[in-house]
Amino acid sequence: MNFEFQNPTKIIFGAGSLVQLGEVVSEYGKKAMIVIGGGSVKRTGVFDKAVESLKAEGVHYVECADVEPNPRITSVVRGAQIAKDEKCDVIIALGGGSTMDAAKVIGAAAFYDGNPWNMILHGQEAIYVPTKTLPVITVPTLAATGSEANCGAVITNDDTKIKSFIQNPLLFPKVAIVDPELTVSVPQDHTAYGVCDIITHVMEGYFNGVDGTPIQDRFAEGVIINAIEYGRKAVVDGNDLEARGLVQWASIVALNGWVQAGVHMLAPMHMIEHALSAHHDLTHGAGLAIIGPAWMRFAARHRPERFAQFAQRVFNLSPKGKDALTLGMEGIEAYEAFLREIGCPTKLTEVGIGDELFEQYAKDAALVVRDEEGRLLGRPPMTTKDIVEVLKSAL
Amino acid sequence: MNFEFQNPTKIIFGAGSLVQLGEVVSEYGKKAMIVIGGGSVKRTGVFDKAVESLKAEGVHYVECADVEPNPRITSVVRGAQIAKDEKCDVIIALGGGSTMDAAKVIGAAAFYDGNPWNMILHGQEAIYVPTKTLPVITVPTLAATGSEANCGAVITNDDTKIKSFIQNPLLFPKVAIVDPELTVSVPQDHTAYGVCDIITHVMEGYFNGVDGTPIQDRFAEGVIINAIEYGRKAVVDGNDLEARGLVQWASIVALNGWVQAGVHMLAPMHMIEHALSAHHDLTHGAGLAIIGPAWMRFAARHRPERFAQFAQRVFNLSPKGKDALTLGMEGIEAYEAFLREIGCPTKLTEVGIGDELFEQYAKDAALVVRDEEGRLLGRPPMTTKDIVEVLKSAL
Repeated sequence: MNFEFQNPTKIIFGAGSLVQLGEVVSEYGKKAMIVIGGGSVKRTGVFDKAVESLKAEGVHYVECADVEPNPRITSVVRGAQIAKDEKCDVIIALGGGSTMDAAKVIGAAAFYDGNPWNMILHGQEAIYVPTKTLPVITVPTLAATGSEANCGAVITNDDTKIKSFIQNPLLFPKVAIVDPELTVSVPQDHTAYGVCDIITHVMEGYFNGVDGTPIQDRFAEGVIINAIEYGRKAVVDGNDLEARGLVQWASIVALNGWVQAGVHMLAPMHMIEHALSAHHDLTHGAGLAIIGPAWMRFAARHRPERFAQFAQRVFNLSPKGKDALTLGMEGIEAYEAFLREIGCPTKLTEVGIGDELFEQYAKDAALVVRDEEGRLLGRPPMTTKDIVEVLKSAL
Repeated sequence: MNFEFQNPTKIIFGAGSLVQLGEVVSEYGKKAMIVIGGGSVKRTGVFDKAVESLKAEGVHYVECADVEPNPRITSVVRGAQIAKDEKCDVIIALGGGSTMDAAKVIGAAAFYDGNPWNMILHGQEAIYVPTKTLPVITVPTLAATGSEANCGAVITNDDTKIKSFIQNPLLFPKVAIVDPELTVSVPQDHTAYGVCDIITHVMEGYFNGVDGTPIQDRFAEGVIINAIEYGRKAVVDGNDLEARGLVQWASIVALNGWVQAGVHMLAPMHMIEHALSAHHDLTHGAGLAIIGPAWMRFAARHRPERFAQFAQRVFNLSPKGKDALTLGMEGIEAYEAFLREIGCPTKLTEVGIGDELFEQYAKDAALVVRDEEGRLLGRPPMTTKDIVEVLKSAL
């Protein structure tokens, strides 16, 4: 156990906390850029409430609208140009993970004259490492990526069909205003995809971390248990504010580093899913619901005890008279059944993806986080053949 | 669930991490004050290693030695004077919770010309709220208080026999260098007291927080389960570096806010213990081992379901055929048995404390965190009579 941990983001959590936006933003300047997605925040009235709060504190704003669900590097370029032209002091990300990720990279791109794609890892090393960024305030309207309180961002290059990421301490948002009321309007399917994303974030470290992190194991299991319990409730009744709040809190702690401290997490499920959604514009959480169980059945054969622990502690399955692999596989079954119950797809055919590009996805998945032999890092490391095998099992 | 959370302290964790001290400190200046306790860090060679690391980076230092086990405000005054006279840029706390607490308050006192006792809550409000502090780097040599990565400090006034606290975001250490190797020399008894302190920190929020925090419940249970498992191992074999590391990690997460986020923790066990150790210079963790089970038996009658959950999830006790209070009491029995097993006292008579000053302790305990009726806040709030009853049951 050797590691460093720091997460300076201030979290303001609670129903109704959106009203604090203006006061928070005004600490960073008087001219803000609001980054939003396709406009649902305007239809729901959230945008107007945000603007009202800004106006009350004398904060002016410009918009950077239409950030795509899998945010494109072209949107980052566009946003950075607006921030420069309009001399913005601070960026507000008002939306889901895509909006927040784009806003975080825009903040750094505003101080960089090169192509911001240079900041995204798409070979073994980034071509450019940012040194300065505009302060970013996140206001998540979806519980899923945890992007509101971490220093990562995932961006897609539509020309090369590569979806990849940046992680840099500069990208920690200054403040995350987390208001569960903003997630009440999220439809059932996207609520479910978000829950799957949350659980998969935790699972990546739990199944792909180092040995000997029993405190973090308990944290991880605790987040998954509650994401299942309250995720189910939020899907059944979108107006259940307690469930919405707990799912949103789960989304933050799933990827703000608390569960991962000392774990040295790898994320093969995400890498495979990113390869898929770069080509198909699949919702990330839906892709994870398909790749997750397929990858887990592959990985359980290499580390059955770990999956047995998962089955026992998360799903309360009895170990009596079973070997570890059998118990582990029962846990995966239970997880997959939960995903189906809340309405997630669990097979590629359900989302219209066939086997035509399997070799390509496998190659793309291992583009960045790979070992010397070119294998996708994880427990176990995966060859192209392994990845194709997992994809086939998900058909 | 409405709350704010921020903890900016950077944690550098791992066996051997002490060598990074000089490099870390040099980011904050070239003249450091090292705050230490009674000198055990000199006997164990830790002090020399720290100095070597500072010298390698050209950092000069002065000492503030002899900080007491329950640190006195007089030591804070003395330390602040040294920091001013010697124009120190940064403070290094090398020791246990007392040393770290003193160092944190010294940092603020270095910018305040009044009596630093004014910063400690000893009425309902602090007389002075600090506005500036010297940067503090903590290097814990004992796993117990979690002071290395939080913004609290407990200080004793020997004149008035009041032991009280300050909590202020300014007091977050900049960096905590957490090297489990430094705890290997901690004797068995103090290792055990530290484990009790860790568990009690978590219990305060778990038993005295608001309802509806199921994720934080799991975090709390996870920390306690592991503090018990690895605490036991560290007491049995002080050289078990894995156990030392996990106990030290437990000490940090027990009180850095992760377990408490949204919980709105109160700390009646601590308040009662502080009243005791202000008068008797009892080791804090040993005092908590006595007050803890006594308080728990009192509180369980008011909230049996909570204690039943504790019994089931932490000690795996079966609920079959028992009402909640019976199960809860069994959990408290199991906890007390663990404390005795690792060598903690669990009765006042074991540490030579009689009933002479019970009324005084009860009055002191409710000095700061009290409701309008003067009751000590917690679940349930406690009258003087309640506190005396708990103390009597601990005789």
